[in-house]
Amino acid sequence: MIKVGIVGGTGYTGVELLRLLAKHPNARVSVITSRAEAGIPVSDLYPNLRGHVDLAFTEPDVDSLGQCDVVFFATPHGVAQNLMPALIATGTRVVDLSADFRIRDAELWARWYNQPHGCPELIDQAVYGLPELNREAIKTARLVACPGCYPTAAQLALLPLLQQDLVATDNLIVSAASGATGAGRQAKVGMLLTEISDSFKAYGAGGHRHLPEIEQALHDMQPAGSDPAQVTFVPHLLPMVRGIHATCYARAKDAASLPDLQALFEERFLDEPFVDVMPAGSHPETRSVKGSNMCRISVCQPQGRDTIVVLAVIDNLTRGASGQAVQNMNIMFGFDETEGLDVVALLP
Amino acid sequence: MIKVGIVGGTGYTGVELLRLLAKHPNARVSVITSRAEAGIPVSDLYPNLRGHVDLAFTEPDVDSLGQCDVVFFATPHGVAQNLMPALIATGTRVVDLSADFRIRDAELWARWYNQPHGCPELIDQAVYGLPELNREAIKTARLVACPGCYPTAAQLALLPLLQQDLVATDNLIVSAASGATGAGRQAKVGMLLTEISDSFKAYGAGGHRHLPEIEQALHDMQPAGSDPAQVTFVPHLLPMVRGIHATCYARAKDAASLPDLQALFEERFLDEPFVDVMPAGSHPETRSVKGSNMCRISVCQPQGRDTIVVLAVIDNLTRGASGQAVQNMNIMFGFDETEGLDVVALLP
Amino acid sequence: MIKVGIVGGTGYTGVELLRLLAKHPNARVSVITSRAEAGIPVSDLYPNLRGHVDLAFTEPDVDSLGQCDVVFFATPHGVAQNLMPALIATGTRVVDLSADFRIRDAELWARWYNQPHGCPELIDQAVYGLPELNREAIKTARLVACPGCYPTAAQLALLPLLQQDLVATDNLIVSAASGATGAGRQAKVGMLLTEISDSFKAYGAGGHRHLPEIEQALHDMQPAGSDPAQVTFVPHLLPMVRGIHATCYARAKDAASLPDLQALFEERFLDEPFVDVMPAGSHPETRSVKGSNMCRISVCQPQGRDTIVVLAVIDNLTRGASGQAVQNMNIMFGFDETEGLDVVALLP
Amino acid sequence: MIKVGIVGGTGYTGVELLRLLAKHPNARVSVITSRAEAGIPVSDLYPNLRGHVDLAFTEPDVDSLGQCDVVFFATPHGVAQNLMPALIATGTRVVDLSADFRIRDAELWARWYNQPHGCPELIDQAVYGLPELNREAIKTARLVACPGCYPTAAQLALLPLLQQDLVATDNLIVSAASGATGAGRQAKVGMLLTEISDSFKAYGAGGHRHLPEIEQALHDMQPAGSDPAQVTFVPHLLPMVRGIHATCYARAKDAASLPDLQALFEERFLDEPFVDVMPAGSHPETRSVKGSNMCRISVCQPQGRDTIVVLAVIDNLTRGASGQAVQNMNIMFGFDETEGLDVVALLP
Repeated sequence: MIKVGIVGGTGYTGVELLRLLAKHPNARVSVITSRAEAGIPVSDLYPNLRGHVDLAFTEPDVDSLGQCDVVFFATPHGVAQNLMPALIATGTRVVDLSADFRIRDAELWARWYNQPHGCPELIDQAVYGLPELNREAIKTARLVACPGCYPTAAQLALLPLLQQDLVATDNLIVSAASGATGAGRQAKVGMLLTEISDSFKAYGAGGHRHLPEIEQALHDMQPAGSDPAQVTFVPHLLPMVRGIHATCYARAKDAASLPDLQALFEERFLDEPFVDVMPAGSHPETRSVKGSNMCRISVCQPQGRDTIVVLAVIDNLTRGASGQAVQNMNIMFGFDETEGLDVVALLP
Repeated sequence: MIKVGIVGGTGYTGVELLRLLAKHPNARVSVITSRAEAGIPVSDLYPNLRGHVDLAFTEPDVDSLGQCDVVFFATPHGVAQNLMPALIATGTRVVDLSADFRIRDAELWARWYNQPHGCPELIDQAVYGLPELNREAIKTARLVACPGCYPTAAQLALLPLLQQDLVATDNLIVSAASGATGAGRQAKVGMLLTEISDSFKAYGAGGHRHLPEIEQALHDMQPAGSDPAQVTFVPHLLPMVRGIHATCYARAKDAASLPDLQALFEERFLDEPFVDVMPAGSHPETRSVKGSNMCRISVCQPQGRDTIVVLAVIDNLTRGASGQAVQNMNIMFGFDETEGLDVVALLP
Repeated sequence: MIKVGIVGGTGYTGVELLRLLAKHPNARVSVITSRAEAGIPVSDLYPNLRGHVDLAFTEPDVDSLGQCDVVFFATPHGVAQNLMPALIATGTRVVDLSADFRIRDAELWARWYNQPHGCPELIDQAVYGLPELNREAIKTARLVACPGCYPTAAQLALLPLLQQDLVATDNLIVSAASGATGAGRQAKVGMLLTEISDSFKAYGAGGHRHLPEIEQALHDMQPAGSDPAQVTFVPHLLPMVRGIHATCYARAKDAASLPDLQALFEERFLDEPFVDVMPAGSHPETRSVKGSNMCRISVCQPQGRDTIVVLAVIDNLTRGASGQAVQNMNIMFGFDETEGLDVVALLP
Repeated sequence: MIKVGIVGGTGYTGVELLRLLAKHPNARVSVITSRAEAGIPVSDLYPNLRGHVDLAFTEPDVDSLGQCDVVFFATPHGVAQNLMPALIATGTRVVDLSADFRIRDAELWARWYNQPHGCPELIDQAVYGLPELNREAIKTARLVACPGCYPTAAQLALLPLLQQDLVATDNLIVSAASGATGAGRQAKVGMLLTEISDSFKAYGAGGHRHLPEIEQALHDMQPAGSDPAQVTFVPHLLPMVRGIHATCYARAKDAASLPDLQALFEERFLDEPFVDVMPAGSHPETRSVKGSNMCRISVCQPQGRDTIVVLAVIDNLTRGASGQAVQNMNIMFGFDETEGLDVVALLP
């Protein structure tokens, strides 16, 4: 039974970590911090945890966090960077759900996040925590940078095509949509039910912070020496709570000699516990993964033309954040990768 | 490990049973029937079950059902009645989620359901499966009639007041609202998203089939010899998927000598694993029980006047149907009552 | 063509006034104020007004407001009180959508709104703007206090019963539910889509500010000399944008001698342009009044027992606020009462 | 005042026609047909029409329809084809909202709609009713084929780019999403609130009937002699009632020499009453056009790369069907094009 700390437990990824870890057979949350809510029982904020979690929030403190075997950061970007040097020095291992250590180029990070990177010296040690891409490195990582929600869906959707070098990479399209929990739990007019319910819109069409992260991991998938993939990424806001849907469009380099795409995807993900390739002709629904760590994928080639369409759904809070974080923890500590994550999605 | 059969597995209570039983340590579903879908894998209808349930639907058949230790009926009313004599004769025990055996008066049943009761001779053997009221009888029951969704919420809300004889029972008000899964999975224009989303209405205000069921169990709670409770029950349809909220209004017999209501409720439900009395001043939300078997309750006495308000929330598919059915199974077979049901509600 | 001013135009009742007045044949909005957004075109905040409203927000200023024929206050409580003496002195007439002048007892107001009343000397001049109750007085009023959203629905529902003295008034129940626009456009965590979508709850069960307002108008309806009506009022929050549904329960004084309730309601509202008594057995839906000033009502007497149920729906922003404000303006200025309000509700 | 007939008035495009025409100053609906509901008052089905529309449904009948100045078909495909020869022979003019006369190639139509075309001889006479493309021809048309909902949004979005020949047309991407009213009012399990609320999915990714229609009109926009545009079109189902959002991706032929896209779009639509080009950097929301005939469009060029993104929103029932039908009627009969359509969208 390992000891777990959570920094920044009041947001949605925090409560999702608690939901999942409350039933994990090998891990026990012993510290959960929040400056704003210090002293308050967690279940006062989240009544679903009544009877399951007895902790109260505490002030963040390196000493008590350092006594944990693993610490999750469920904080906005910029927070983990500042605590990381002191925390890593204690020997504890870290799973960072924020964007702080996802981008290997500190200047690129600084440009997209409008602030200098606070801890560039540790970026090298961070492993990008997409298990399907980096499972071996995750096993021994001291610091895992959990992928963002959109990147997780887009990268899994495009992985088989890029690894096999089947599509043009100068013009990939990721048209994606997220439930409103993707924006967190801050009080903003723009996220009121009255503003976004029964409506749909794009946002960040001119440039979204997940773009460089998507492109970096896609490049990692491409054959060595390839030109970096260029993506047009347009996120959209869905009038619902949980779920991401990525619709990816890629142009075959040579449509005439494409392999069987269904077989390609099924084989690539055959041994992956958290990727489900749907039968040919299927359209995955976000509700089919609600509360679960599964990513469901379909692939097709409309009209037999040379544009390939890949559809991928995840729960943004589970596979797109806290579930994948637990999956990474399982890999880091040698637990069965599905431990604590073997739940059936809530449908209907 | 007991063997479980499910009759009528294509509806929402069917898939909810499968979701819960898939992770139950002491039970394994071995038969699931559906005339319409015989031969089809369950996970074709419900993609959330892919990887968790390998069964296919079969034709209903007393022989194979009779080899189960327990059979759940997740059917419309009228179906269980017809199969029951043959099935009970095999010695298997039954948990009926339908309305067939909830009402002890066969004529009253016939009047509300517009058809003669098909198996009046077995009504006597049926135990009404509200554990908080009938736990002892459930332990040895051959046939448990699971309460309806509205009745479960209303009865738990009013239980402490009626058992202590604190309120007038000639004029109880149950103003309740349900998510759309309460209407099942039939193709009806009136249940299209386009008809009920972003709207709210009452239905059945002139008389709803759950009324006699509510009144019967309330009478069971009253001190012996009391006049039967009379309820005005108005159900409403919520533009959402899961959840029931009951707002109950009861008039104190003697407002001046009422005990501390908060303490009364907390004490009554202290040992109940699936009733959570919220702190004074709380308002339970349906989302706080989504996917869980918990009923959360608050009580207050507005303005110190003599009308008491009790608020109760359940998930209509879990505590209001399949979860309570599993709870009954646990009691019947001597398992820990929370086995398979110790899940954290999905919030947000 | 009268000149209209609007104080506090950034909220939902403000934009709703603009939507309705943009097409009013006899009125033209010439001033719309907002301290926070002064200088910003209205259509920057509300893109639906692009091409329909060319105004920009200005600082509130008594001089320019005083040049209007009528000024609407679409402000939180406490604002109108402070501007009112100076504004009324200019001779302009006022329709106040806020709660400032609804309660005739300044001390009662102070208790429920947690602050002393800022302008008790003008309370006497205010006419409570429920046209079905006070049409004559509205015609000549200098200051109309528009009813709150819940009170409008509850009062119209109970009006025929109270005027005819048919029900006990010591124990009226108003169980009501509102779309989220009822809470305005403030950035609050509790009103995020992620917090209230796909869920339902009561709030303010122990006491809501609309209670004294409901009771005051009900008393006005009762025969002279009656004891004041006592109401138990529980509001609920619906996971949707617009709409209020009131389910009212009243006990017949003498069930045996009740008149035909359907006929009673139809006759009482026969000449009312904005009350629609639905056919017997109907259940009004909130969507049937979306964007319209209509109140639809049904009445029934379940099981022929002595509890009468009245169902009423309105659009909280239209009939519950801005539409009723325009209706009051029409009455005050001698326009046809339906001018600018003769729109078909948006269904589906 | 012209006389209007509506064939197939029970669906959502039928009720939307009634909503719009009820307030049209130059048109009066005199016949509305429905085989299934003949004899039933329209307002029994649609309570929002109570007090606005007094008609009852009648059996479809060429004689009474032929006495109308214009007949709208609000029917599923296949119906208008059969009635058209007899109806056109009466001299009445027709606006067909169905897909029957949108495709000029009868064999292509037959392939996508899985049935032979029932009236190929009249296809030539049909004018495709996108006013921005075909206004002149519409004026004198006897038969207007109203565009589909997705095609309307996609075609308006791409119109300026294609007319100016600025983008590669062998690889256009239309990633679009629709509210559930797009599927009509048929009782289908797949359209229940319980199946599609709080979820999102693509459908018809392998091929949707709107694809050939989109491509045909795009070809009409291209400079003479161009190769026909090829589109990859993936529609998605939104958990909401009304609204279409099209996200279109097109690759600049020569990114270095592109004109100012914002200016290009603003100029192209300057005189169009029902296209609103939003300010640079905007993201149109579907709610900003709810109940209105407006199409709002934004254009951008992310990262200055060579993929252009155009966002367009419409209300699928108004601009995507009945509103555009009325706009066509206005053009055909020489009314002001905005007559009956000058409404403010319902926001919030």
